Amino acid sequence: MVFIVEENCSTDNIAKTIREYAGVRRKHAIGEIVHAFNFKSEDVVVSFGEDAALIRNGEDGLLLAADGIWSMLMQADPYWAGFCSVLVNVHDIAAMGGKPLAMVDILSVEDEKICHEVLRGMSDASSKFGVPVVGGHLHPDTDFSAIDVAIMGIVKISDAICSHTACAGDRVIAAFDLDGRIHPSCALNWDSATLRSPEELRSQIGVMQELGKRHLVTAGKDISNPGVIGTLGMLLETSRKGAVIELSRIPRPDLSALDIPFSHWVRMYPGMGFILTAKEECVDEIISLFRAAGMDAADIGYIDDTSNLTIKYHNKETSVFDLSKEGIMGLYFE
Amino acid sequence: MVFIVEENCSTDNIAKTIREYAGVRRKHAIGEIVHAFNFKSEDVVVSFGEDAALIRNGEDGLLLAADGIWSMLMQADPYWAGFCSVLVNVHDIAAMGGKPLAMVDILSVEDEKICHEVLRGMSDASSKFGVPVVGGHLHPDTDFSAIDVAIMGIVKISDAICSHTACAGDRVIAAFDLDGRIHPSCALNWDSATLRSPEELRSQIGVMQELGKRHLVTAGKDISNPGVIGTLGMLLETSRKGAVIELSRIPRPDLSALDIPFSHWVRMYPGMGFILTAKEECVDEIISLFRAAGMDAADIGYIDDTSNLTIKYHNKETSVFDLSKEGIMGLYFE
Repeated sequence: MVFIVEENCSTDNIAKTIREYAGVRRKHAIGEIVHAFNFKSEDVVVSFGEDAALIRNGEDGLLLAADGIWSMLMQADPYWAGFCSVLVNVHDIAAMGGKPLAMVDILSVEDEKICHEVLRGMSDASSKFGVPVVGGHLHPDTDFSAIDVAIMGIVKISDAICSHTACAGDRVIAAFDLDGRIHPSCALNWDSATLRSPEELRSQIGVMQELGKRHLVTAGKDISNPGVIGTLGMLLETSRKGAVIELSRIPRPDLSALDIPFSHWVRMYPGMGFILTAKEECVDEIISLFRAAGMDAADIGYIDDTSNLTIKYHNKETSVFDLSKEGIMGLYFE
Repeated sequence: MVFIVEENCSTDNIAKTIREYAGVRRKHAIGEIVHAFNFKSEDVVVSFGEDAALIRNGEDGLLLAADGIWSMLMQADPYWAGFCSVLVNVHDIAAMGGKPLAMVDILSVEDEKICHEVLRGMSDASSKFGVPVVGGHLHPDTDFSAIDVAIMGIVKISDAICSHTACAGDRVIAAFDLDGRIHPSCALNWDSATLRSPEELRSQIGVMQELGKRHLVTAGKDISNPGVIGTLGMLLETSRKGAVIELSRIPRPDLSALDIPFSHWVRMYPGMGFILTAKEECVDEIISLFRAAGMDAADIGYIDDTSNLTIKYHNKETSVFDLSKEGIMGLYFE
């Protein structure tokens, strides 16, 4: 399916919007952190640059990830911040093809009412996704409010889906749950999760586990703050590859009914969204699996051996990132 | 061995100091958090109230914990805050008799220089303890600095050491690495870890694994911010038991040379310290294992069926906590 992108949408404008988007730019300092840690263990299969680290434990693979919530969201809507703190962590495990097992939270509390709302949001999300909160740490006396969560999961090592394994020639697939709403507290959150039943949510998470078990994808990542194109850029940086994608092929809800431009949609954090790469012969089966779980998925382009993420529309094209010059996360180049 | 406690030390004074110590009092809000989470999973063997949650994964036990650093330490000495963020998490896994596998960090950065120092401290501790940092989350634009770490470990379920399993009649053992110093940046930190070689540190962590494998203890906990007596109080609260301990039997360095009173020592966070309960016939073997790793350990009293933690010295005794009236963590009573 090919979508009509609105008139004033040019590849140059979209590229500029994404490059300047805080959701992308704030990933920059990750590189310094990665380089700070010297101690390596041979049990660590993959770590930085992936949605979760994969640790060998005999035959098993253990997954560990941590994710936090922007302080601006915490101030705007502490319930939603709590809900999202669980959601983003469950996504991190799902993106690796894993089964989420348990979470711990780190809560910094300035205000009791905010604390109560954050916990209510976390508890609702924990119940919906079926992943227990089993402990954590409380900073009871900070002069700020913050919520961070870490999550543990399992995956068979041979079934794990990674970010660094995309190959030139692979197709790029974007998958979203389009049955959602712009979240009332945050215009850049596409909320589908609060509208779905626990069974629906768990079957969507289950699609990634199935893709891993069937070895249908070569790489994958959950679409997070940098949006669909920014997240693809991170996958490319980790894989040291380039890609060419067609803007018209990116799945989207009815943007005119929502009264938002396409440049807004591609920056959104979807309640359930993944970017994947796969051999061409696997694409149809992947798309079918997502559709069976109520999601939309489409082949939006291909991986190449350049270091550019290029977007195309109406026979025009623009490079969004030249990852050989400047990485999004600064993993290799800073 | 029996120590001489200084002249002005009364059980009433010590009890008051501990009750009013912020390290104890700030644990209070944990109860609300525990009660906020409704979703339970039958794979969770133990969770809140323990140093780490224990999750069943087939035959294996997986451990997950999170711990953060007081903001005051972060401001006073960011290198030491980074070092401690790793140390306290490694302790959480060790206390359960587990093997620490990997950590993730959540770093909130206001100032680049602080960030650099925190990372340097974390990296040094990661190398010393031999536990890799494998990922995490960065908040690059907060108006505060904070470091939190989550850790994953493994333990055979039947070998796990828990906090809630102390029995009336058990002996109470306190173990410390006394070969240390008052940390120059924090008078309440007894630093032994930076002075020990990686091999020494790992053998001290290994004692807890050995105690678990040999099934020598009935319960255990790492001594943390609440100090040795406060930590015992938390263990009692989780076990729903009481205890009577002799202040004169608590191992300590040469306090007069350090120029600190006993009331200071019992509030200190030791670089390596555990509080354990055990059947009387196991006590000698436990103490020998700690001594072989360069630590001091002593039988300091016994568990009873009351809800009081009572301290004794010179034929006087005082109840520090009546856990039936007010828990330290508020796990059961609020």
